[in-house]
Amino acid sequence: MRDFIAAAEAAADAAGAVIRPLFRSRLLVEAKGDASPVTEADKGAERTIRALLAERFPEHGILGEEYGPTAAEAEYVWVVDPIDGTRAFVTGRPIFGTLLGLMHHGRPVLGLIDQPATGERWIGVAGEPLRFRGPLGGTPGSRPCARLAEAELSCTSPDMFTPDEAPRFDRVRKAARRVTWGGDCYGFGLLALGLVDAVVESDLKPWDWVALAPVVEAAGGRLTDWQGQPLRLDGPGQVIAVGDPALLPEIVALLAA
Amino acid sequence: MRDFIAAAEAAADAAGAVIRPLFRSRLLVEAKGDASPVTEADKGAERTIRALLAERFPEHGILGEEYGPTAAEAEYVWVVDPIDGTRAFVTGRPIFGTLLGLMHHGRPVLGLIDQPATGERWIGVAGEPLRFRGPLGGTPGSRPCARLAEAELSCTSPDMFTPDEAPRFDRVRKAARRVTWGGDCYGFGLLALGLVDAVVESDLKPWDWVALAPVVEAAGGRLTDWQGQPLRLDGPGQVIAVGDPALLPEIVALLAA
Repeated sequence: MRDFIAAAEAAADAAGAVIRPLFRSRLLVEAKGDASPVTEADKGAERTIRALLAERFPEHGILGEEYGPTAAEAEYVWVVDPIDGTRAFVTGRPIFGTLLGLMHHGRPVLGLIDQPATGERWIGVAGEPLRFRGPLGGTPGSRPCARLAEAELSCTSPDMFTPDEAPRFDRVRKAARRVTWGGDCYGFGLLALGLVDAVVESDLKPWDWVALAPVVEAAGGRLTDWQGQPLRLDGPGQVIAVGDPALLPEIVALLAA
Repeated sequence: MRDFIAAAEAAADAAGAVIRPLFRSRLLVEAKGDASPVTEADKGAERTIRALLAERFPEHGILGEEYGPTAAEAEYVWVVDPIDGTRAFVTGRPIFGTLLGLMHHGRPVLGLIDQPATGERWIGVAGEPLRFRGPLGGTPGSRPCARLAEAELSCTSPDMFTPDEAPRFDRVRKAARRVTWGGDCYGFGLLALGLVDAVVESDLKPWDWVALAPVVEAAGGRLTDWQGQPLRLDGPGQVIAVGDPALLPEIVALLAA
């Protein structure tokens, strides 16, 4: 696992070096929201990550947002999203992230969230306490919060839900103490620092959530689907994260169709 | 104006020193979303700002979120929000801000947005180009974008609108290229860096928007009410910001009741 962590850190470092020069660049300002410069950064960062991982672990598989799956049936498969939170990135918010997850026989065992602009990094390993570092402070570990009425809820956007899902999410939103919008992977990172109690989202792809699971769980929380079950690679990407596992049943009940 | 800018910078420095120790602190984690530690930071920072401004400009008025108005009829009145974006602050997002505005005969002439966690600062003065500095990059100045279909729209929360306002805002949201949620004052700062094209919000208090007007205008943009007119201290706080003044009529038309 030591070698896997070192490789994930090296890959995130290399991806950050590709991504940072574009953040808030003139190129991006002049593109006026056109995604192509971001797609280029995304692709460039993913190529860099893939090259590094393939060199160190030629027998591992890789699944990335930009270049699809390679050896997806391998014992170990890396799952990569170079820029999670494209809208945040394009609009200059330093709360997008680079995500690197490692699955062993399909189960997430290592997750890394990197914030290239602020220099924050979360590393979660199954069965070990969360590692976190960065210049903005924060203590790794989720906090107790067993009731939704006391919970800080986070969600990237009200637009991520289907017409079937929207009223179900709305029940959670209304029962929560408060909701803060925006954040993508950063909201899950804040949950792992005990600053957010729940995140409820949908339509997440494996490269959006595989890296988050070990981070949230190493912090003491849980990452599940809307039924409270482990997420599946072929599922609809309905995700619940809770800092306090005791909060899960109340959210699952409210999300029931 | 030189003395006013120096005072605003000194006040923001002093407020940041009060606010930063609480950001992501154990105290805040343990408060579990209870606003009282934030209110304490808010009040402490406002007292610090007020003391500094009163010492330098005893004849000026001050209007602050926490302590109300003092000499509100003075020729110069400072308008202060120590922590704009309480939800962002409470949940550990480094995109809240300290706002300091100065009005001359009721007209905003100086605005400062400070981000205490990232170290970014925007200073707008009527008739002068925008000043911006910070470690995350970005170039002061808004960008051309005359059509909403090409615009990056930003809004803090879909929950900020009244039942009358919500469908009007929805027309803007649907016509925009894309919407990014969250941000408070930070969204306006990003507009002033040419990364966001429009911000549409409501229920903003004078301490939320007075500081923003000179920043947006020094960047080349416009800050108005939903009718496209200058904001009034006694208005409902319906705010439009555009980076390109040519974009304003389309948004005003869509927001019409």
